[in-house]
Amino acid sequence: MTKARVIVTLKNGVLDPQGKAIESALGGLGFAGIGSVRQGKVFDIVLEETDPARAEAALKKMCEQLLANTVIEDYSITIG
Amino acid sequence: MTKARVIVTLKNGVLDPQGKAIESALGGLGFAGIGSVRQGKVFDIVLEETDPARAEAALKKMCEQLLANTVIEDYSITIG
Repeated sequence: MTKARVIVTLKNGVLDPQGKAIESALGGLGFAGIGSVRQGKVFDIVLEETDPARAEAALKKMCEQLLANTVIEDYSITIG
Repeated sequence: MTKARVIVTLKNGVLDPQGKAIESALGGLGFAGIGSVRQGKVFDIVLEETDPARAEAALKKMCEQLLANTVIEDYSITIG
């Protein structure tokens, strides 16, 4: 069994209206000095595969095919 | 300037229909041996605050007030 965390974030330069909304909401709550907020997604995935290298290869495929839109998003995979 | 990453995930035991949908979509794409998928949110926040301790305190407040629903979600803060 392999536990993995996949983090998908927007590439630099891609507009993030959701992040902007959170930024202004935080301002409205009285938080000052906020430079920027960008929102992304995290996936905690448990695989039956026990070999870390094979698990990572499978996760990479999942990111390319479903979890991330690689035109506008980057992904990072952390095993364990 | 402090860069921080906040990760918000559903607490154990809280139903995650989005994660279940991704799990079955991955099955449909031919990925076998998937134990479970849980989806969460990630926030990359840049603060003007330079003191890490004060930045972390501010981020904790933001999580409690806006970023996480602490009834059903956990959050973790990583500075730098």
